[in-house]
Amino acid sequence: MAKPVYVLNGPNLNMLGLREPTIYGAETLDDVKRRTEARAAQLGLEVDFRQSNFEGELVTWIQQARTEASGIILNAGAYTHTSIALMDAIHAAELPTIEVHLSNVFRREGFRHHSYISLAARGVICGFGPKVYELALEAMADILQQQSSAKG
Amino acid sequence: MAKPVYVLNGPNLNMLGLREPTIYGAETLDDVKRRTEARAAQLGLEVDFRQSNFEGELVTWIQQARTEASGIILNAGAYTHTSIALMDAIHAAELPTIEVHLSNVFRREGFRHHSYISLAARGVICGFGPKVYELALEAMADILQQQSSAKG
Amino acid sequence: MAKPVYVLNGPNLNMLGLREPTIYGAETLDDVKRRTEARAAQLGLEVDFRQSNFEGELVTWIQQARTEASGIILNAGAYTHTSIALMDAIHAAELPTIEVHLSNVFRREGFRHHSYISLAARGVICGFGPKVYELALEAMADILQQQSSAKG
Amino acid sequence: MAKPVYVLNGPNLNMLGLREPTIYGAETLDDVKRRTEARAAQLGLEVDFRQSNFEGELVTWIQQARTEASGIILNAGAYTHTSIALMDAIHAAELPTIEVHLSNVFRREGFRHHSYISLAARGVICGFGPKVYELALEAMADILQQQSSAKG
Amino acid sequence: MAKPVYVLNGPNLNMLGLREPTIYGAETLDDVKRRTEARAAQLGLEVDFRQSNFEGELVTWIQQARTEASGIILNAGAYTHTSIALMDAIHAAELPTIEVHLSNVFRREGFRHHSYISLAARGVICGFGPKVYELALEAMADILQQQSSAKG
Amino acid sequence: MAKPVYVLNGPNLNMLGLREPTIYGAETLDDVKRRTEARAAQLGLEVDFRQSNFEGELVTWIQQARTEASGIILNAGAYTHTSIALMDAIHAAELPTIEVHLSNVFRREGFRHHSYISLAARGVICGFGPKVYELALEAMADILQQQSSAKG
Amino acid sequence: MAKPVYVLNGPNLNMLGLREPTIYGAETLDDVKRRTEARAAQLGLEVDFRQSNFEGELVTWIQQARTEASGIILNAGAYTHTSIALMDAIHAAELPTIEVHLSNVFRREGFRHHSYISLAARGVICGFGPKVYELALEAMADILQQQSSAKG
Amino acid sequence: MAKPVYVLNGPNLNMLGLREPTIYGAETLDDVKRRTEARAAQLGLEVDFRQSNFEGELVTWIQQARTEASGIILNAGAYTHTSIALMDAIHAAELPTIEVHLSNVFRREGFRHHSYISLAARGVICGFGPKVYELALEAMADILQQQSSAKG
Amino acid sequence: MAKPVYVLNGPNLNMLGLREPTIYGAETLDDVKRRTEARAAQLGLEVDFRQSNFEGELVTWIQQARTEASGIILNAGAYTHTSIALMDAIHAAELPTIEVHLSNVFRREGFRHHSYISLAARGVICGFGPKVYELALEAMADILQQQSSAKG
Amino acid sequence: MAKPVYVLNGPNLNMLGLREPTIYGAETLDDVKRRTEARAAQLGLEVDFRQSNFEGELVTWIQQARTEASGIILNAGAYTHTSIALMDAIHAAELPTIEVHLSNVFRREGFRHHSYISLAARGVICGFGPKVYELALEAMADILQQQSSAKG
Amino acid sequence: MAKPVYVLNGPNLNMLGLREPTIYGAETLDDVKRRTEARAAQLGLEVDFRQSNFEGELVTWIQQARTEASGIILNAGAYTHTSIALMDAIHAAELPTIEVHLSNVFRREGFRHHSYISLAARGVICGFGPKVYELALEAMADILQQQSSAKG
Amino acid sequence: MAKPVYVLNGPNLNMLGLREPTIYGAETLDDVKRRTEARAAQLGLEVDFRQSNFEGELVTWIQQARTEASGIILNAGAYTHTSIALMDAIHAAELPTIEVHLSNVFRREGFRHHSYISLAARGVICGFGPKVYELALEAMADILQQQSSAKG
Repeated sequence: MAKPVYVLNGPNLNMLGLREPTIYGAETLDDVKRRTEARAAQLGLEVDFRQSNFEGELVTWIQQARTEASGIILNAGAYTHTSIALMDAIHAAELPTIEVHLSNVFRREGFRHHSYISLAARGVICGFGPKVYELALEAMADILQQQSSAKG
Repeated sequence: MAKPVYVLNGPNLNMLGLREPTIYGAETLDDVKRRTEARAAQLGLEVDFRQSNFEGELVTWIQQARTEASGIILNAGAYTHTSIALMDAIHAAELPTIEVHLSNVFRREGFRHHSYISLAARGVICGFGPKVYELALEAMADILQQQSSAKG
Repeated sequence: MAKPVYVLNGPNLNMLGLREPTIYGAETLDDVKRRTEARAAQLGLEVDFRQSNFEGELVTWIQQARTEASGIILNAGAYTHTSIALMDAIHAAELPTIEVHLSNVFRREGFRHHSYISLAARGVICGFGPKVYELALEAMADILQQQSSAKG
Repeated sequence: MAKPVYVLNGPNLNMLGLREPTIYGAETLDDVKRRTEARAAQLGLEVDFRQSNFEGELVTWIQQARTEASGIILNAGAYTHTSIALMDAIHAAELPTIEVHLSNVFRREGFRHHSYISLAARGVICGFGPKVYELALEAMADILQQQSSAKG
Repeated sequence: MAKPVYVLNGPNLNMLGLREPTIYGAETLDDVKRRTEARAAQLGLEVDFRQSNFEGELVTWIQQARTEASGIILNAGAYTHTSIALMDAIHAAELPTIEVHLSNVFRREGFRHHSYISLAARGVICGFGPKVYELALEAMADILQQQSSAKG
Repeated sequence: MAKPVYVLNGPNLNMLGLREPTIYGAETLDDVKRRTEARAAQLGLEVDFRQSNFEGELVTWIQQARTEASGIILNAGAYTHTSIALMDAIHAAELPTIEVHLSNVFRREGFRHHSYISLAARGVICGFGPKVYELALEAMADILQQQSSAKG
Repeated sequence: MAKPVYVLNGPNLNMLGLREPTIYGAETLDDVKRRTEARAAQLGLEVDFRQSNFEGELVTWIQQARTEASGIILNAGAYTHTSIALMDAIHAAELPTIEVHLSNVFRREGFRHHSYISLAARGVICGFGPKVYELALEAMADILQQQSSAKG
Repeated sequence: MAKPVYVLNGPNLNMLGLREPTIYGAETLDDVKRRTEARAAQLGLEVDFRQSNFEGELVTWIQQARTEASGIILNAGAYTHTSIALMDAIHAAELPTIEVHLSNVFRREGFRHHSYISLAARGVICGFGPKVYELALEAMADILQQQSSAKG
Repeated sequence: MAKPVYVLNGPNLNMLGLREPTIYGAETLDDVKRRTEARAAQLGLEVDFRQSNFEGELVTWIQQARTEASGIILNAGAYTHTSIALMDAIHAAELPTIEVHLSNVFRREGFRHHSYISLAARGVICGFGPKVYELALEAMADILQQQSSAKG
Repeated sequence: MAKPVYVLNGPNLNMLGLREPTIYGAETLDDVKRRTEARAAQLGLEVDFRQSNFEGELVTWIQQARTEASGIILNAGAYTHTSIALMDAIHAAELPTIEVHLSNVFRREGFRHHSYISLAARGVICGFGPKVYELALEAMADILQQQSSAKG
Repeated sequence: MAKPVYVLNGPNLNMLGLREPTIYGAETLDDVKRRTEARAAQLGLEVDFRQSNFEGELVTWIQQARTEASGIILNAGAYTHTSIALMDAIHAAELPTIEVHLSNVFRREGFRHHSYISLAARGVICGFGPKVYELALEAMADILQQQSSAKG
Repeated sequence: MAKPVYVLNGPNLNMLGLREPTIYGAETLDDVKRRTEARAAQLGLEVDFRQSNFEGELVTWIQQARTEASGIILNAGAYTHTSIALMDAIHAAELPTIEVHLSNVFRREGFRHHSYISLAARGVICGFGPKVYELALEAMADILQQQSSAKG
């Protein structure tokens, strides 16, 4: 049976829907999880949806993904801009990895314009709110199918 | 009847499939157009797909979009990184605009990491090859539906 | 008979009055043209008022000005900040050139603080809305009179 | 009954009094805790005093503060200069937050002159040794009283 | 009766006409004052024309303008590039303020390309010699008339 | 009898309460003076409270403080960011010096993030409005007491 | 029969010989064209000599060169320093490309020291006036001969 | 009896031998541990060999080393380049500390050229694969012997 | 009779001999004045020795020097690094001007390495304590003699 | 009789043909010398071909060229990017000087993009392998002929 | 018989033990040579130990090493930070090269943090005084043995 | 008998009086030597006057000065701006060292504004032509006398 896609969320994403709803919308991370799982089901994928405020825990999950997952969708939150460790972990995982952000980070403060994750990820999707998780799943399905075709 | 989504392509994208196929893939811009139109049909959208090597022409098309289109999907190619005029045009168009790139520009030369388009666009999708056009259409459909709900 | 003053307008200025009227005011570029022509008449000057979204066309007009015009008033819009070609053309035109902007560009984004036009222009007037065209004409009249006195 | 003020301490502050006493003074973090609690009592405040070497744990505590505390006094130690995640957490907490440092960080190495915490905090107090905690409490009392007046 | 427009001149402008006449022209600051007053009379404005080498005195005059003047025309000379205090004073004055320079500062040394005054001023006029004072008066008359219309 | 603490205020602070009250509050500098004197009395300190728009006068006062004061509380306003002369004067004064700001300067424009005063001051307090003067007095009382203990 | 070498000239080069003859010499672009064709004939090469002020047109010509020319000699004028689109077109053309400049650009303003063309071109020749076109043709002949030998 | 030398390994080093073996070699971290312990035995040293993906845990271990270890050999992985907290911990530990890296970090991406660890460590050894641990042990033995001689 | 050489001293130089005598030596500014006058007498020069903490006053003195002095020796203290106004005044004075500093400013903080005075002065002498005034006088005597020879 | 053209080669060029032949080609420096002499003979020029690893020796040769040579062709190797002394020597030599490089230095590491030689040389030729020496000779012949014409 | 390892020392290393003994220790370069030779003997290696103040001589020695040595240990002293020529020579030598420094250069002035040698060397060892030569020999022995195994 | 003062001159200073006499004056280095020796005789000093184009030779002379000279006057020419090796040699020499330049280097190109020599020298004298050598001798006499007084 196929391995799940890890959908990993970084610091403060557990506050979604609670903080500044006029900016981030009213959906909580649980809502996002359900939305993501629903779309995955449509695409024939399974997802393992997690959140942590700890950089070290995110690194460990990406390492686990290496053998336990078929791909990674990563919203690393603020660690996006500061964590070389996450970037190294993605390289080591040797899995298709997609970087997502709820907001268009390029329209925010200057220090959010640089991403270490982008240097290791296959692609980036940002700015469409919770919809980015669905789009990332669709992109992932496309990539996995290509891999499967290439092997088959 | 609904206005079309403008799908605008900048300099050198007409060379797609001809140049460096091992990098950019074998699909030509015509193939991408067909793929985009097919997906649009599924989503109930119409697209107007164009390409120009001229910054001024792209500016003019975006200005036209203001009254003729419901949204813009823009792959500005090399002008992404140098054109403030395109950014200003997008602001003036006052339409949902999605920036796309075939490759993950953040893994390429440093001067491709900055985008003036991002400062005006709703969101960014990059790195998934021609698939980015389809994902952008889906994101656009989502945005247009929300607009329509908000008005309705 | 005296040659006209070229009043050249760059990208997106054709959208004046249409886009973001609360910011840029309700006057269209046609209104500005009429206002400029009226003031020119008072000052005994003729103006040739044009707009283009194409950097290459603006370069060509400035080259033509060399033999066809007595001076240039240039609102290069977004090309102000990126076009060395326009700067070179002004140097080649060997005519008094005045840079204008509707808004005070120094209170906007950082990338609008640098102007290649300023490196070649006689002077700069910005921040007074359409009035900047009138002030530039008055400054131009003063310069042309001095030239005429110096020759005479 | 009123919620406590969280007094949160970052990496290496548990070494206070043990390392380099000629620089940092002889007071341990326990001494500082007692001094802080004493002053709080005078001001009619309760404090919850904690320390962690983990950025993720500090983020989590700030998130908890959102519902469990009336304000935050934060000495983020070295994370002050590198943690966007802490800054985001403070924004999400929507509580008055005061940044403190024992030493005058601006007289130390250049990389200590920038603080992500300052971008989210109400104010900053540094350079007076353990006294900064007392001053921060007094400032916090003042802020809470104003809030209370404003609501009342 | 209407309040005067303050025309304030910074360091070394009292040397006008004395130093390097081939560059700055033969007009002294007194000549400029007379020229300015003449134009003001035509426009129905009164001017109060002053010069100081002291940053502190210029700050004080701008503060006085708040209640004593209807607008400010400021040639801050070298303080243009270094004085945040003047910028703050202009913000505090809450009056229309126009920045002028005799020369085109953007064609001079790099450290003259940045202006703190521009960050607070309504607009900028530079490069036309003493004529800049007349143009500034005309722009000021236009602004004051608009204010008066808006109130009226 | 003990020497007073100099409380020195730089450019534009005399406008307090007059300009932009929604930002800076309704207290005037006289109000702040009274508040500061009241707290000083509680702490058994005397204060000498002054304001100047002139950098040179502030330098001179700090030099006088060397022999006439027991400590300095300095709100250098805009000179904070540009005056090496004030920094040198503080070094020469060889007195405990505390830097204060009404607002959190780190949340304002980038050029307000650097302070020459911080390089010479004992500590910094900012962001709590007029309360910063009271907190600085309390910190000063603490420092003077320690000095006195160390000598005694 | 062999394909021609494209000799492409960018903005303002049509002004050669007309503007500032003491700097750029008295030769017009037509003179340069004749000189270039004469040398080509000696070397057994054919040239197709063009000029445009439009970046988009230059991009298009380089794209055409891909199938219509054997090599490209490019004097991109001011676009040398700002056009990533031209660089991308050269990469796509997959032809030997030689960058030329009449003047030694490294002895001019700082913004002329960087060239996007250099990042894609085989080599660079600058500083020898119209002679650079002849030298570039000789270098091109050498390269084409090597290609032919390698294939042959 | 002598205290052990702490050999601490940061994020992703637990993936050694698993990821990209052509680059990092086939030795796992367990192999490296055995090799390190063998060399330590030869040198009469004991080692305590650990790995963590958590910055906070590495900080805590270095703090423990202060009383529990005679020296520290630290391969901080990606935290090398971003962790001021680790640098502070090393300063607080007041023990001889040696920084090691398997690869020559100076031949990799630019962001790996700066090390906060280097600012606190006695010395650096990099580029010799797992051999760096043995060389660090020999250097440590030399340092400890000198300390012992100096005391003795 | 010959005009005097102005010897002008900037902020905090009146504290000489009083502050940090182990660094700056025990000589007061009065001692330096006497030493300077003595050397001037030997060289047949007269000096006018002044000090001010006010940038504006120093500017005014340099302006006066234009007609009242034969040359200027300037120790601008901290204004050296920040005052474009002083630089402009020196240019306007059109007199030989020599910059002096007691200490070797290049061995001090980075912000003291740049001097606006150097951009206008004939030469610079620094690092020899009060001796720099004597050396400057000798250099000035040499320059004045050359001027006199050139005229004579 | 005419003076020779100095052809000077800097550090490591004596390794040509020996090191990395797949990159630099199989020609040794002796081969290049012969090729250069052959072309010189065709052009009626004499060359003096030298190589040194010593910056000081290259400086001395350029100084000698002043009286002993008619022009200089300089491949300064790595000193190109670091030697102000070579630049000064070229200025002092007052001879036409042409900078050459075998490879296109602008496609190599960033620190090879800046050249002190370019700031003093007449022109630059790079990227065509040993052919650059022949092209430089032809450019030199052109320059010398023009000089001779101008004098004659 | 095996070729020796070149141990090359750059400028000022001949002053070792003479200058600042409290910093650099009492060992002279001769002492270091003996220590190095002794360790080499233990490892079955021969060393050729040299010192020069001339960059050109060091370049030449590295070129000779290409055919005369089995590896290079290089303490380039101050040339470490400025010599691209040494870096190029190491690349040309195609031998294992180890960079050493007596002190931890990363704890010294900023301009010592960058090394051109590191960009070409196999690895770096610094901060352990003369011991670094011994550690480098051991690392070299390890590398040579691996090479020999790979060939054998 | 007293040791001589070394007066050391760097690259291209042997061209003095030969190159660009309108800039550097008509005095040759021999003239400067005679002038320097004459002044030395007046001051009771002996000088050893040398010039070299080789950085390595200048380093060696400074090393010799350590035991053979009483002080160093150094005009390092272009090496001033690039040679850390010379700076290190001056530190090792432990002698009073004075940096001189004929011209005011701060009014020349930007890359001449930084000096490694200044970081090690006692003081700097520049801008007075050959007179700088005499002034440096007088400063040196003053320093040597103070040393002698301090010892005596």
